[in-house]
Amino acid sequence: MSGQGEAPAAVPAEVRASDEDRLARVALGRLGEPGDPRIARLVAALGAPVVLSELSGPGQRSEVARELATRLRAIDPSGDLERAARRGIRFVVPADPEWPRQVDDLQAAPLVDERGGPPLGLWVRGPGRLDGLTRSVAVVGSRSATTYGTEVAAGIAGSLVRAGHPVVSGAAFGIDQAAHRGALAVDGANVAVLACGVDRAYPTAHRPLLEHLAETGLVVAEVPPGCAPTRGRFLSRNRLIAALTRGTVVVEAAVRSGALNTATWATRLNRHLMGVPGPVTQAQSEGVHQLIRSGAASLVTHGAEVLEVVGDIGTHLVTPPRAPGRSRDTVGRRHQRILDAVPVAQPARVDSIAVTAGLDLVTVQAGLNSLRKVGLVELLPQGWRLTPASQD
Amino acid sequence: MSGQGEAPAAVPAEVRASDEDRLARVALGRLGEPGDPRIARLVAALGAPVVLSELSGPGQRSEVARELATRLRAIDPSGDLERAARRGIRFVVPADPEWPRQVDDLQAAPLVDERGGPPLGLWVRGPGRLDGLTRSVAVVGSRSATTYGTEVAAGIAGSLVRAGHPVVSGAAFGIDQAAHRGALAVDGANVAVLACGVDRAYPTAHRPLLEHLAETGLVVAEVPPGCAPTRGRFLSRNRLIAALTRGTVVVEAAVRSGALNTATWATRLNRHLMGVPGPVTQAQSEGVHQLIRSGAASLVTHGAEVLEVVGDIGTHLVTPPRAPGRSRDTVGRRHQRILDAVPVAQPARVDSIAVTAGLDLVTVQAGLNSLRKVGLVELLPQGWRLTPASQD
Repeated sequence: MSGQGEAPAAVPAEVRASDEDRLARVALGRLGEPGDPRIARLVAALGAPVVLSELSGPGQRSEVARELATRLRAIDPSGDLERAARRGIRFVVPADPEWPRQVDDLQAAPLVDERGGPPLGLWVRGPGRLDGLTRSVAVVGSRSATTYGTEVAAGIAGSLVRAGHPVVSGAAFGIDQAAHRGALAVDGANVAVLACGVDRAYPTAHRPLLEHLAETGLVVAEVPPGCAPTRGRFLSRNRLIAALTRGTVVVEAAVRSGALNTATWATRLNRHLMGVPGPVTQAQSEGVHQLIRSGAASLVTHGAEVLEVVGDIGTHLVTPPRAPGRSRDTVGRRHQRILDAVPVAQPARVDSIAVTAGLDLVTVQAGLNSLRKVGLVELLPQGWRLTPASQD
Repeated sequence: MSGQGEAPAAVPAEVRASDEDRLARVALGRLGEPGDPRIARLVAALGAPVVLSELSGPGQRSEVARELATRLRAIDPSGDLERAARRGIRFVVPADPEWPRQVDDLQAAPLVDERGGPPLGLWVRGPGRLDGLTRSVAVVGSRSATTYGTEVAAGIAGSLVRAGHPVVSGAAFGIDQAAHRGALAVDGANVAVLACGVDRAYPTAHRPLLEHLAETGLVVAEVPPGCAPTRGRFLSRNRLIAALTRGTVVVEAAVRSGALNTATWATRLNRHLMGVPGPVTQAQSEGVHQLIRSGAASLVTHGAEVLEVVGDIGTHLVTPPRAPGRSRDTVGRRHQRILDAVPVAQPARVDSIAVTAGLDLVTVQAGLNSLRKVGLVELLPQGWRLTPASQD
């Protein structure tokens, strides 16, 4: 197996003939759709070169097999790799040091889904490294996002990158774009995983974003360069996003959003699943609320809470939010007791306050005088009452 | 024990001398603050009449006890009850059929809180019955609520009342008022629990609301008529709201909102606790999000989900929200497979689609023609692609 020990960016323009496994994986990748569990099972059992030679050899018995063999013989994997390399695209396979081992978790999953098998290899553009994504977090959500959603997504992505967690998303409109933008804003590791070839831009409007990510981060796809996005490929792409990352944050998702498919994969693969709530009156948050209600996702409201979930044990513990301290908190126990007995609206006389507080008159009179000095109670002609400052 | 079997609204103007327990409870209620666990423990052990006669009898040993006795002897419980009755106010005690048994759960709680004891009795105005509140639900939240919060609270309260669940709240500004308003809109059981006497209005602006509830629903307080609201009484009022109800819905609550105090009591008393999420950018939802994050509250987004939690077993099961069906869902498995292989943007030729779908050319050509008739794919000069209608 070659490739071992090489710097991953330095894919040779001239691919060595000995790189049998890599070439076989390129060819088999052109045969089926991403994650096809039948091919995955054969490759796991026999190795890619054996599967390729069995399938493409002469003397196939059935019509279907003969057609497959013809198609396979027409594929030019060396040419594919050379053309890709000339455009700065590498094909990373499990034997490469750059291979992201976490996606091997998909080996256990093929039975549950027709797209559930592990990838044969990953087509990659960009200076980042796939094996640097063990701490990565997916930030995904609705394409028809609200301003609220895109702002929250960008904020969470920024916090993640700042804390050393690469952000992975799908470069779609809405939340995906906001996640990439939020990660770019702090100049951090930023990964787009596509349903089409890494040389294509879908949506077309995101070509500048994808070109920028290819120069500074990573653009990843399971389908070979040139391939078009299809619905099936969006679904297999979602499984890859879940598999590459340590956890998935869903920011907005209507009840049938593709982001919920990523969420399902995160759960299947035992990844952390988090959801950001929103107004219950907004359809874009409905799917997220369902995820939280069902217990599949935990509720997160900002980056620090995401870090608490995905961070290494004992790091990033969140201090629950607290309101600013109030002067009422600074007074002693006895004064608290007096304060609790002072009316909030109609003033009361000191003897009535003393009865309510269950304290003697002298203590209460002295206490009220002190509390008045710090502005917590006021004395009106009819008696004492709380100041607005001392109330909730 | 009298009162048994009487219609609760018909509290006699002339209180019978034999109603020793009731009179003792009125007097003891004037001695301490609501929920004082010391008095609660003595009453539970000895009965209210014995406690009263022990405390008010002559020959008290300590200075404090002598002062207490003097105060108790100055209290006129019969006069209190008569004056109250003349104003349509009754004092309901545990021996009355109207007594809401669920508040007895507080008997187990006094140790955890200086206001945790069960009430000695409840002062009540209105035609409703306290023993009709076993299915009641509290809807509480921030006084400084947002429009979003008040609309959601009113909607949930309306759903509850419509399903036969009385709504209980605290008649405060913001969420409380919205809850009462939502329950009024469908003319249902509506209960205000106050921190002051039931003859008072706090806030003053809510006098019309409280008068209306006293005519159509219930206004309840633990402190005797005439008493002013204090911070301590708001806290004991919150415990009473939690104890009276089967569950509490917190709609908006900043991190130090009094509604979180009600939530704590709901948890202590093993009541259902629910929280309505909101924008994470809004301080008013921060406390609710914390309750959900900590697992104390379950996330609810509308009335039906609240009913699923508080309703009787097997009723009100919520169907998770679904988007309207799409024409894509109606096509068969083979056509789905073809659809999944059709590009979403750049058109593709039929042979390329057949390869992606893993189906033969004739099947795919026929399938595309059918799918075109139902508007799911379109044929352009360069080939086939999905129509916008068939996409997510």
